Amino acid sequence: VNVGLVGLGHIGGSLGLALRARGARVVGRDRDAAVAERARGLGIVDEVGEVGGADVVVLAVPVLAIPACAAELHIGGETVVTDVGSTKRSVVAGCEALFGGRFVGGHPMAGSERAGPEAADAKLFTGRRVLLTPTARTDARAVAAVTEMWRSVGAEVLALDAARHDRMIAAVSHLPHAVAYALVGALAGMADELRGLSGGGFVDTTRIASTPAPMWVDVFIDNRDMLLELIDRFSDRLGALRAAIAAGDAAELGRTIDEARRARAAILG
Amino acid sequence: VNVGLVGLGHIGGSLGLALRARGARVVGRDRDAAVAERARGLGIVDEVGEVGGADVVVLAVPVLAIPACAAELHIGGETVVTDVGSTKRSVVAGCEALFGGRFVGGHPMAGSERAGPEAADAKLFTGRRVLLTPTARTDARAVAAVTEMWRSVGAEVLALDAARHDRMIAAVSHLPHAVAYALVGALAGMADELRGLSGGGFVDTTRIASTPAPMWVDVFIDNRDMLLELIDRFSDRLGALRAAIAAGDAAELGRTIDEARRARAAILG
Repeated sequence: VNVGLVGLGHIGGSLGLALRARGARVVGRDRDAAVAERARGLGIVDEVGEVGGADVVVLAVPVLAIPACAAELHIGGETVVTDVGSTKRSVVAGCEALFGGRFVGGHPMAGSERAGPEAADAKLFTGRRVLLTPTARTDARAVAAVTEMWRSVGAEVLALDAARHDRMIAAVSHLPHAVAYALVGALAGMADELRGLSGGGFVDTTRIASTPAPMWVDVFIDNRDMLLELIDRFSDRLGALRAAIAAGDAAELGRTIDEARRARAAILG
Repeated sequence: VNVGLVGLGHIGGSLGLALRARGARVVGRDRDAAVAERARGLGIVDEVGEVGGADVVVLAVPVLAIPACAAELHIGGETVVTDVGSTKRSVVAGCEALFGGRFVGGHPMAGSERAGPEAADAKLFTGRRVLLTPTARTDARAVAAVTEMWRSVGAEVLALDAARHDRMIAAVSHLPHAVAYALVGALAGMADELRGLSGGGFVDTTRIASTPAPMWVDVFIDNRDMLLELIDRFSDRLGALRAAIAAGDAAELGRTIDEARRARAAILG
Protein backbone atom coordinates (compact mmCIF):
# COMPACT_ATOMS: atom_id res chain seq x y z
CA VAL A 1 0.00 0.00 0.00
CA ASN A 2 1.14 3.54 -0.77
CA VAL A 3 0.49 6.09 1.97
CA GLY A 4 0.84 9.85 1.72
CA LEU A 5 1.61 11.64 4.98
CA VAL A 6 0.96 15.36 5.34
CA GLY A 7 2.61 16.69 8.50
CA LEU A 8 5.63 14.83 9.80
CA GLY A 9 5.56 15.69 13.52
CA HIS A 10 5.14 13.30 16.41
CA ILE A 11 1.94 11.60 15.23
CA GLY A 12 2.58 11.72 11.48
CA GLY A 13 6.17 10.65 12.03
CA SER A 14 5.19 7.75 14.27
CA LEU A 15 2.68 6.55 11.69
CA GLY A 16 5.31 6.77 8.95
CA LEU A 17 7.78 4.68 10.93
CA ALA A 18 5.13 2.12 11.85
CA LEU A 19 3.78 1.80 8.30
CA ARG A 20 7.22 1.46 6.73
CA ALA A 21 8.08 -1.23 9.29
CA ARG A 22 5.01 -3.10 7.97
CA GLY A 23 6.16 -2.78 4.36
CA ALA A 24 4.13 0.20 3.20
CA ARG A 25 5.63 2.80 0.90
CA VAL A 26 5.34 6.27 2.46
CA VAL A 27 5.62 9.61 0.69
CA GLY A 28 5.46 12.60 2.99
CA ARG A 29 5.56 16.33 3.15
CA ASP A 30 5.55 19.06 5.77
CA ARG A 31 4.99 22.77 5.38
CA ASP A 32 8.40 23.13 7.04
CA ALA A 33 10.91 21.77 4.50
CA ALA A 34 13.55 21.29 7.21
CA VAL A 35 11.16 19.06 9.19
CA ALA A 36 10.47 17.03 6.04
CA GLU A 37 14.20 16.52 5.43
CA ARG A 38 14.77 15.48 9.06
CA ALA A 39 11.86 13.05 8.78
CA ARG A 40 13.40 11.50 5.68
CA GLY A 41 16.72 11.17 7.49
CA LEU A 42 14.93 9.47 10.39
CA GLY A 43 13.37 6.87 8.07
CA ILE A 44 9.83 8.20 8.55
CA VAL A 45 9.22 8.51 4.79
CA ASP A 46 10.65 6.81 1.71
CA GLU A 47 10.47 10.08 -0.13
CA VAL A 48 9.55 13.72 0.38
CA GLY A 49 7.20 14.85 -2.35
CA GLU A 50 3.65 14.99 -3.70
CA VAL A 51 1.20 12.74 -1.86
CA GLY A 52 -1.81 13.06 -4.18
CA GLY A 53 -1.29 9.73 -5.93
CA ALA A 54 -1.20 7.57 -2.80
CA ASP A 55 -3.83 4.94 -1.93
CA VAL A 56 -4.44 6.65 1.42
CA VAL A 57 -3.50 10.20 2.39
CA VAL A 58 -3.26 10.97 6.12
CA LEU A 59 -3.55 14.61 7.18
CA ALA A 60 -1.50 14.99 10.37
CA VAL A 61 -1.63 18.76 10.84
CA PRO A 62 -3.38 20.92 13.51
CA VAL A 63 -7.14 20.61 13.16
CA LEU A 64 -7.99 24.14 12.04
CA ALA A 65 -5.48 23.77 9.18
CA ILE A 66 -6.81 20.45 7.88
CA PRO A 67 -9.40 21.47 5.25
CA ALA A 68 -7.26 24.27 3.77
CA CYS A 69 -4.22 22.03 3.74
CA ALA A 70 -6.19 19.22 2.09
CA ALA A 71 -7.52 21.55 -0.60
CA GLU A 72 -3.98 22.31 -1.82
CA LEU A 73 -2.89 18.71 -2.29
CA HIS A 74 -4.20 17.75 -5.78
CA ILE A 75 -5.45 14.48 -4.42
CA GLY A 76 -6.43 11.90 -7.04
CA GLY A 77 -9.96 10.66 -7.59
CA GLU A 78 -9.31 7.18 -6.17
CA THR A 79 -7.35 8.24 -3.11
CA VAL A 80 -8.89 7.71 0.33
CA VAL A 81 -8.26 10.60 2.74
CA THR A 82 -8.21 10.56 6.54
CA ASP A 83 -6.81 12.68 9.36
CA VAL A 84 -5.55 12.34 12.93
CA GLY A 85 -7.14 15.41 14.51
CA SER A 86 -8.46 15.51 18.08
CA THR A 87 -11.76 17.10 17.01
CA LYS A 88 -13.98 15.73 14.29
CA ARG A 89 -17.12 17.73 13.44
CA SER A 90 -15.50 20.60 11.56
CA VAL A 91 -12.81 18.41 10.00
CA VAL A 92 -15.39 15.97 8.66
CA ALA A 93 -17.58 18.76 7.32
CA GLY A 94 -14.66 20.52 5.65
CA CYS A 95 -13.12 17.40 4.15
CA GLU A 96 -16.40 15.83 3.00
CA ALA A 97 -16.96 19.04 1.05
CA LEU A 98 -13.66 18.35 -0.71
CA PHE A 99 -13.59 14.55 -0.99
CA GLY A 100 -17.15 13.34 -0.44
CA GLY A 101 -17.34 9.69 0.58
CA ARG A 102 -13.59 9.20 0.19
CA PHE A 103 -12.90 11.01 3.47
CA VAL A 104 -13.03 9.27 6.87
CA GLY A 105 -12.30 11.26 10.02
CA GLY A 106 -9.83 9.60 12.35
CA HIS A 107 -8.38 10.19 15.81
CA PRO A 108 -5.64 7.94 17.20
CA MET A 109 -5.78 8.21 20.99
CA ALA A 110 -2.05 8.15 21.38
CA GLY A 111 -0.86 11.64 22.05
CA SER A 112 1.99 12.50 24.33
CA GLU A 113 3.74 15.60 25.53
CA ARG A 114 6.43 15.06 22.90
CA ALA A 115 6.66 16.88 19.59
CA GLY A 116 8.48 16.79 16.27
CA PRO A 117 9.75 13.99 14.04
CA GLU A 118 12.57 13.19 16.48
CA ALA A 119 9.88 12.06 18.95
CA ALA A 120 8.38 9.64 16.41
CA ASP A 121 7.89 6.13 17.79
CA ALA A 122 7.06 3.13 15.58
CA LYS A 123 5.26 1.48 18.53
CA LEU A 124 3.13 4.50 19.43
CA PHE A 125 -0.12 2.99 18.18
CA THR A 126 0.38 -0.57 19.40
CA GLY A 127 -2.64 -1.50 21.47
CA ARG A 128 -4.04 2.04 21.30
CA ARG A 129 -7.50 2.95 20.15
CA VAL A 130 -8.24 4.85 16.94
CA LEU A 131 -11.66 6.48 16.70
CA LEU A 132 -13.13 6.80 13.18
CA THR A 133 -16.12 9.02 12.46
CA PRO A 134 -17.67 7.91 9.15
CA THR A 135 -20.95 9.53 8.11
CA ALA A 136 -23.87 8.34 6.01
CA ARG A 137 -21.96 9.63 2.97
CA THR A 138 -18.72 7.76 3.65
CA ASP A 139 -17.74 4.97 1.22
CA ALA A 140 -17.42 1.54 2.84
CA ARG A 141 -14.22 1.14 0.81
CA ALA A 142 -12.72 4.21 2.47
CA VAL A 143 -13.62 3.01 5.97
CA ALA A 144 -12.11 -0.38 5.17
CA ALA A 145 -8.85 1.11 3.87
CA VAL A 146 -8.37 3.38 6.87
CA THR A 147 -9.34 0.63 9.31
CA GLU A 148 -6.85 -1.72 7.69
CA MET A 149 -4.10 0.91 7.82
CA TRP A 150 -4.54 1.43 11.57
CA ARG A 151 -4.86 -2.27 12.32
CA SER A 152 -1.63 -2.89 10.43
CA VAL A 153 0.21 -0.73 12.97
CA GLY A 154 -1.35 -2.49 15.95
CA ALA A 155 -4.24 -0.17 16.80
CA GLU A 156 -7.81 -1.09 17.67
CA VAL A 157 -10.39 0.75 15.57
CA LEU A 158 -13.75 1.98 16.86
CA ALA A 159 -16.33 3.95 14.86
CA LEU A 160 -18.62 6.57 16.36
CA ASP A 161 -20.54 9.68 15.42
CA ALA A 162 -18.42 12.85 15.07
CA ALA A 163 -20.55 14.87 17.50
CA ARG A 164 -20.43 12.09 20.08
CA HIS A 165 -16.68 11.89 19.54
CA ASP A 166 -16.23 15.59 20.18
CA ARG A 167 -18.32 15.48 23.35
CA MET A 168 -16.57 12.42 24.76
CA ILE A 169 -13.09 13.66 23.93
CA ALA A 170 -13.88 17.10 25.34
CA ALA A 171 -14.55 15.28 28.62
CA VAL A 172 -11.64 12.86 28.79
CA SER A 173 -9.00 14.93 27.03
CA HIS A 174 -9.78 18.57 26.25
CA LEU A 175 -11.12 19.47 29.72
CA PRO A 176 -8.21 17.72 31.50
CA HIS A 177 -5.78 19.64 29.30
CA ALA A 178 -7.47 22.99 30.00
CA VAL A 179 -7.45 22.23 33.74
CA ALA A 180 -3.79 21.19 33.69
CA TYR A 181 -2.76 24.37 31.86
CA ALA A 182 -4.68 26.49 34.37
CA LEU A 183 -3.23 24.55 37.29
CA VAL A 184 0.37 25.00 36.23
CA GLY A 185 -0.31 28.58 35.19
CA ALA A 186 -1.72 29.37 38.64
CA LEU A 187 1.57 28.22 40.19
CA ALA A 188 3.85 29.91 37.65
CA GLY A 189 4.63 32.77 40.04
CA MET A 190 5.74 30.31 42.75
CA ALA A 191 7.99 28.23 40.48
CA ASP A 192 11.24 29.21 42.22
CA GLU A 193 9.91 28.34 45.67
CA LEU A 194 8.35 25.10 44.52
CA ARG A 195 11.33 23.73 42.64
CA GLY A 196 12.18 20.25 43.84
CA LEU A 197 9.24 20.02 46.25
CA SER A 198 6.75 18.53 43.83
CA GLY A 199 5.87 14.88 44.24
CA GLY A 200 4.45 12.27 41.93
CA GLY A 201 0.94 13.68 42.21
CA PHE A 202 1.95 17.00 40.72
CA VAL A 203 4.06 15.37 38.02
CA ASP A 204 1.25 13.10 36.86
CA THR A 205 -1.55 15.63 37.19
CA THR A 206 0.25 18.20 35.08
CA ARG A 207 2.07 15.99 32.57
CA ILE A 208 -0.40 16.88 29.81
CA ALA A 209 0.32 20.57 30.43
CA SER A 210 3.60 19.94 28.60
CA THR A 211 1.92 19.18 25.28
CA PRO A 212 2.87 21.62 22.54
CA ALA A 213 0.81 24.74 21.94
CA PRO A 214 -0.13 24.84 18.22
CA MET A 215 -2.12 21.62 18.26
CA TRP A 216 -3.98 22.55 21.45
CA VAL A 217 -4.83 26.07 20.43
CA ASP A 218 -6.67 24.61 17.45
CA VAL A 219 -8.37 21.90 19.48
CA PHE A 220 -9.66 24.33 22.11
CA ILE A 221 -11.01 26.73 19.49
CA ASP A 222 -12.50 24.06 17.26
CA ASN A 223 -14.30 22.22 20.06
CA ARG A 224 -15.12 25.31 22.08
CA ASP A 225 -18.87 24.71 22.41
CA MET A 226 -18.42 21.30 24.02
CA LEU A 227 -15.39 22.39 26.03
CA LEU A 228 -16.91 25.57 27.48
CA GLU A 229 -19.90 23.60 28.71
CA LEU A 230 -17.59 21.17 30.48
CA ILE A 231 -15.38 23.92 31.90
CA ASP A 232 -18.52 25.44 33.42
CA ARG A 233 -19.59 22.10 34.83
CA PHE A 234 -16.11 21.65 36.29
CA SER A 235 -16.12 25.16 37.77
CA ASP A 236 -19.44 24.43 39.46
CA ARG A 237 -17.96 21.32 41.04
CA LEU A 238 -14.85 23.13 42.16
CA GLY A 239 -17.01 25.92 43.57
CA ALA A 240 -19.00 23.38 45.60
CA LEU A 241 -15.79 21.77 46.83
CA ARG A 242 -14.43 25.21 47.73
CA ALA A 243 -17.56 26.01 49.72
CA ALA A 244 -17.33 22.73 51.64
CA ILE A 245 -13.65 23.39 52.44
CA ALA A 246 -14.40 26.96 53.55
CA ALA A 247 -17.22 25.69 55.78
CA GLY A 248 -15.06 22.89 57.19
CA ASP A 249 -17.88 20.52 56.21
CA ALA A 250 -16.21 17.14 56.67
CA ALA A 251 -19.31 15.12 55.77
CA GLU A 252 -19.80 16.96 52.47
CA LEU A 253 -16.09 16.70 51.65
CA GLY A 254 -16.17 12.98 52.35
CA ARG A 255 -19.15 12.55 50.01
CA THR A 256 -17.47 14.62 47.28
CA ILE A 257 -14.24 12.63 47.48
CA ASP A 258 -15.99 9.27 47.59
CA GLU A 259 -18.11 10.20 44.60
CA ALA A 260 -15.03 11.23 42.64
CA ARG A 261 -13.29 7.96 43.45
CA ARG A 262 -16.31 5.96 42.32
CA ALA A 263 -16.71 8.05 39.14
CA ARG A 264 -13.07 7.57 38.17
CA ALA A 265 -13.33 3.84 38.67
CA ALA A 266 -16.52 3.80 36.54
CA ILE A 267 -14.95 5.84 33.74
CA LEU A 268 -11.83 3.70 33.65
CA GLY A 269 -14.08 0.62 33.56
CA VAL B 1 16.11 1.38 67.89
CA ASN B 2 12.57 0.90 69.19
CA VAL B 3 9.86 2.61 67.16
CA GLY B 4 6.21 3.01 68.12
CA LEU B 5 3.78 3.31 65.22
CA VAL B 6 0.34 4.78 65.74
CA GLY B 7 -1.85 4.13 62.71
CA LEU B 8 -1.03 1.10 60.56
CA GLY B 9 -2.45 2.11 57.18
CA HIS B 10 -0.52 2.59 53.95
CA ILE B 11 2.08 5.06 55.26
CA GLY B 12 2.42 3.72 58.80
CA GLY B 13 2.47 0.18 57.47
CA SER B 14 5.12 0.96 54.87
CA LEU B 15 7.30 2.59 57.52
CA GLY B 16 6.89 -0.45 59.79
CA LEU B 17 7.97 -2.86 57.04
CA ALA B 18 10.92 -0.66 56.06
CA LEU B 19 12.13 -0.17 59.65
CA ARG B 20 11.87 -3.84 60.52
CA ALA B 21 13.81 -4.70 57.37
CA ARG B 22 16.56 -2.45 58.75
CA GLY B 23 16.55 -4.20 62.12
CA ALA B 24 14.38 -1.87 64.17
CA ARG B 25 11.91 -3.22 66.68
CA VAL B 26 8.41 -1.89 65.93
CA VAL B 27 5.45 -1.83 68.28
CA GLY B 28 2.26 -0.58 66.71
CA ARG B 29 -1.38 0.16 67.30
CA ASP B 30 -4.39 1.26 65.34
CA ARG B 31 -7.76 2.50 66.57
CA ASP B 32 -9.20 -0.35 64.49
CA ALA B 33 -8.10 -3.55 66.27
CA ALA B 34 -8.72 -5.62 63.13
CA VAL B 35 -6.33 -3.40 61.14
CA ALA B 36 -3.70 -3.82 63.88
CA GLU B 37 -4.04 -7.59 63.76
CA ARG B 38 -3.78 -7.64 59.96
CA ALA B 39 -0.69 -5.43 60.19
CA ARG B 40 0.92 -7.86 62.61
CA GLY B 41 0.12 -10.73 60.27
CA LEU B 42 1.72 -8.80 57.40
CA GLY B 43 4.96 -8.30 59.34
CA ILE B 44 4.47 -4.55 59.74
CA VAL B 45 4.94 -4.67 63.52
CA ASP B 46 6.71 -7.01 65.90
CA GLU B 47 3.93 -6.53 68.39
CA VAL B 48 0.60 -4.78 68.80
CA GLY B 49 0.54 -2.84 72.05
CA GLU B 50 1.49 0.30 73.95
CA VAL B 51 3.95 2.55 72.11
CA GLY B 52 4.75 5.02 74.91
CA GLY B 53 8.09 3.47 75.82
CA ALA B 54 9.62 3.57 72.32
CA ASP B 55 12.63 5.70 71.39
CA VAL B 56 10.61 7.32 68.62
CA VAL B 57 6.83 7.37 68.25
CA VAL B 58 5.43 8.05 64.78
CA LEU B 59 1.86 9.32 64.54
CA ALA B 60 0.46 8.09 61.22
CA VAL B 61 -3.18 9.09 61.55
CA PRO B 62 -5.26 11.75 59.70
CA VAL B 63 -3.99 15.21 60.58
CA LEU B 64 -6.97 16.54 62.52
CA ALA B 65 -6.76 13.49 64.80
CA ILE B 66 -3.06 13.80 65.59
CA PRO B 67 -2.97 15.94 68.75
CA ALA B 68 -5.94 14.19 70.41
CA CYS B 69 -4.53 10.81 69.49
CA ALA B 70 -1.10 11.77 70.84
CA ALA B 71 -2.56 12.99 74.12
CA GLU B 72 -3.95 9.52 74.89
CA LEU B 73 -0.69 7.62 74.43
CA HIS B 74 1.11 7.98 77.79
CA ILE B 75 4.33 8.75 76.02
CA GLY B 76 7.46 8.60 78.19
CA GLY B 77 9.62 11.62 79.02
CA GLU B 78 12.53 10.55 76.82
CA THR B 79 10.54 9.52 73.79
CA VAL B 80 10.86 11.58 70.62
CA VAL B 81 7.57 12.07 68.76
CA THR B 82 6.96 12.78 65.10
CA ASP B 83 4.13 12.46 62.58
CA VAL B 84 3.57 11.90 58.86
CA GLY B 85 0.78 14.40 58.21
CA SER B 86 0.43 16.40 55.00
CA THR B 87 -0.11 19.68 56.90
CA LYS B 88 2.16 20.96 59.60
CA ARG B 89 1.17 24.22 61.31
CA SER B 90 -1.68 22.88 63.46
CA VAL B 91 0.02 19.55 64.09
CA VAL B 92 3.20 21.22 65.30
CA ALA B 93 1.27 23.63 67.52
CA GLY B 94 -0.85 20.85 69.01
CA CYS B 95 2.01 18.44 69.57
CA GLU B 96 4.48 21.01 70.90
CA ALA B 97 1.88 21.82 73.54
CA LEU B 98 2.02 18.16 74.56
CA PHE B 99 5.66 17.23 74.03
CA GLY B 100 7.62 20.50 73.84
CA GLY B 101 10.98 20.14 72.13
CA ARG B 102 10.61 16.37 71.79
CA PHE B 103 8.18 16.74 68.89
CA VAL B 104 9.32 17.20 65.28
CA GLY B 105 6.73 17.57 62.54
CA GLY B 106 7.34 15.31 59.54
CA HIS B 107 5.87 14.75 56.10
CA PRO B 108 7.12 11.94 53.86
CA MET B 109 6.28 12.90 50.25
CA ALA B 110 5.36 9.42 49.27
CA GLY B 111 1.62 9.13 49.17
CA SER B 112 -0.26 7.06 46.68
CA GLU B 113 -3.85 6.29 45.86
CA ARG B 114 -3.57 3.06 47.86
CA ALA B 115 -4.83 2.55 51.39
CA GLY B 116 -4.65 0.13 54.28
CA PRO B 117 -1.92 -2.16 55.65
CA GLU B 118 -2.25 -4.53 52.67
CA ALA B 119 -0.90 -1.68 50.49
CA ALA B 120 2.20 -1.28 52.67
CA ASP B 121 5.44 -1.26 50.72
CA ALA B 122 8.87 -1.55 52.37
CA LYS B 123 10.40 0.44 49.48
CA LEU B 124 7.90 3.30 49.57
CA PHE B 125 10.35 5.83 51.00
CA THR B 126 13.43 4.86 49.01
CA GLY B 127 14.73 7.99 47.32
CA ARG B 128 11.71 10.01 48.43
CA ARG B 129 11.88 13.28 50.28
CA VAL B 130 10.75 13.73 53.89
CA LEU B 131 10.07 17.28 55.01
CA LEU B 132 10.68 18.05 58.70
CA THR B 133 9.41 21.23 60.33
CA PRO B 134 11.38 21.81 63.54
CA THR B 135 10.80 25.08 65.41
CA ALA B 136 13.00 27.20 67.66
CA ARG B 137 11.80 25.02 70.55
CA THR B 138 12.68 21.67 69.00
CA ASP B 139 15.51 19.65 70.62
CA ALA B 140 18.44 18.96 68.30
CA ARG B 141 18.38 15.40 69.67
CA ALA B 142 14.79 14.96 68.45
CA VAL B 143 15.60 16.27 64.97
CA ALA B 144 18.61 13.95 64.80
CA ALA B 145 16.59 10.88 65.85
CA VAL B 146 13.81 11.50 63.33
CA THR B 147 16.28 12.35 60.58
CA GLU B 148 18.19 9.14 61.25
CA MET B 149 14.98 7.08 61.21
CA TRP B 150 13.99 8.38 57.78
CA ARG B 151 17.47 8.06 56.33
CA SER B 152 17.58 4.46 57.52
CA VAL B 153 14.65 3.68 55.21
CA GLY B 154 16.25 5.40 52.23
CA ALA B 155 14.60 8.83 52.35
CA GLU B 156 16.23 12.22 51.90
CA VAL B 157 15.42 14.65 54.72
CA LEU B 158 14.85 18.38 54.27
CA ALA B 159 13.92 20.86 57.02
CA LEU B 160 11.74 23.91 56.47
CA ASP B 161 9.37 26.19 58.32
CA ALA B 162 5.88 24.77 58.97
CA ALA B 163 4.08 27.71 57.36
CA ARG B 164 6.30 27.54 54.30
CA HIS B 165 5.65 23.80 54.17
CA ASP B 166 1.90 24.29 54.25
CA ARG B 167 2.01 26.89 51.49
CA MET B 168 4.28 24.85 49.22
CA ILE B 169 2.37 21.62 49.73
CA ALA B 170 -0.95 23.39 49.19
CA ALA B 171 0.43 24.29 45.77
CA VAL B 172 2.01 21.04 44.64
CA SER B 173 -0.33 18.59 46.34
CA HIS B 174 -3.51 19.94 47.94
CA LEU B 175 -4.58 22.11 44.99
CA PRO B 176 -3.91 19.32 42.46
CA HIS B 177 -5.99 16.95 44.59
CA ALA B 178 -8.89 19.40 44.84
CA VAL B 179 -8.76 19.98 41.09
CA ALA B 180 -8.65 16.26 40.35
CA TYR B 181 -11.66 15.57 42.59
CA ALA B 182 -13.62 18.35 40.89
CA LEU B 183 -12.58 17.13 37.43
CA VAL B 184 -13.72 13.58 37.98
CA GLY B 185 -16.80 14.78 39.82
CA ALA B 186 -17.77 16.97 36.86
CA LEU B 187 -17.71 13.90 34.62
CA ALA B 188 -19.49 11.57 37.05
CA GLY B 189 -22.78 11.89 35.18
CA MET B 190 -21.12 10.85 31.89
CA ALA B 191 -19.32 7.82 33.31
CA ASP B 192 -21.31 5.26 31.31
CA GLU B 193 -20.71 7.04 28.00
CA LEU B 194 -17.04 7.62 28.72
CA ARG B 195 -16.15 4.12 29.80
CA GLY B 196 -13.22 2.82 27.80
CA LEU B 197 -12.67 6.06 25.87
CA SER B 198 -10.26 7.64 28.33
CA GLY B 199 -6.62 7.78 27.34
CA GLY B 200 -3.41 8.13 29.27
CA GLY B 201 -3.94 11.84 29.85
CA PHE B 202 -7.15 11.27 31.79
CA VAL B 203 -5.66 8.37 33.73
CA ASP B 204 -2.63 10.36 34.85
CA THR B 205 -4.43 13.64 35.47
CA THR B 206 -6.99 12.03 37.75
CA ARG B 207 -4.92 9.33 39.45
CA ILE B 208 -4.74 11.32 42.68
CA ALA B 209 -8.54 11.54 42.72
CA SER B 210 -8.44 7.91 43.83
CA THR B 211 -6.77 8.68 47.15
CA PRO B 212 -8.89 7.76 50.15
CA ALA B 213 -11.29 10.24 51.68
CA PRO B 214 -10.56 10.43 55.43
CA MET B 215 -7.00 11.66 55.07
CA TRP B 216 -7.95 14.27 52.46
CA VAL B 217 -10.95 15.62 54.29
CA ASP B 218 -8.62 16.47 57.18
CA VAL B 219 -5.94 17.95 54.94
CA PHE B 220 -8.38 20.20 53.09
CA ILE B 221 -9.92 21.47 56.32
CA ASP B 222 -6.64 21.89 58.18
CA ASN B 223 -4.91 23.79 55.38
CA ARG B 224 -7.97 25.64 54.18
CA ASP B 225 -6.54 29.17 54.35
CA MET B 226 -3.65 28.35 52.03
CA LEU B 227 -5.75 26.07 49.84
CA LEU B 228 -8.65 28.49 49.32
CA GLU B 229 -6.24 31.18 48.19
CA LEU B 230 -4.76 28.81 45.63
CA ILE B 231 -8.15 27.55 44.47
CA ASP B 232 -9.08 31.18 43.80
CA ARG B 233 -5.85 31.80 41.94
CA PHE B 234 -6.51 28.64 39.87
CA SER B 235 -10.09 29.71 39.17
CA ASP B 236 -8.86 33.06 37.92
CA ARG B 237 -6.49 31.32 35.51
CA LEU B 238 -9.15 28.95 34.31
CA GLY B 239 -11.51 31.88 33.84
CA ALA B 240 -8.93 33.65 31.69
CA LEU B 241 -8.37 30.49 29.66
CA ARG B 242 -12.13 30.09 29.25
CA ALA B 243 -12.45 33.65 28.00
CA ALA B 244 -9.66 33.13 25.46
CA ILE B 245 -11.31 29.93 24.23
CA ALA B 246 -14.73 31.61 23.98
CA ALA B 247 -13.17 34.48 22.03
CA GLY B 248 -11.23 32.11 19.76
CA ASP B 249 -8.13 34.11 20.68
CA ALA B 250 -5.37 31.91 19.30
CA ALA B 251 -2.54 34.27 20.26
CA GLU B 252 -3.66 34.45 23.90
CA LEU B 253 -4.20 30.68 24.04
CA GLY B 254 -0.73 30.12 22.64
CA ARG B 255 0.78 32.40 25.29
CA THR B 256 -1.17 30.67 28.07
CA ILE B 257 -0.09 27.22 26.95
CA ASP B 258 3.54 28.20 26.45
CA GLU B 259 3.64 29.84 29.86
CA ALA B 260 2.20 26.70 31.47
CA ARG B 261 4.79 24.52 29.75
CA ARG B 262 7.61 26.76 30.94
CA ALA B 263 6.23 26.95 34.48
CA ARG B 264 5.95 23.18 34.75
CA ALA B 265 9.52 22.75 33.55
CA ALA B 266 10.65 25.36 36.11
CA ILE B 267 8.75 23.72 38.99
CA LEU B 268 10.08 20.28 38.15
CA GLY B 269 13.58 21.77 37.98
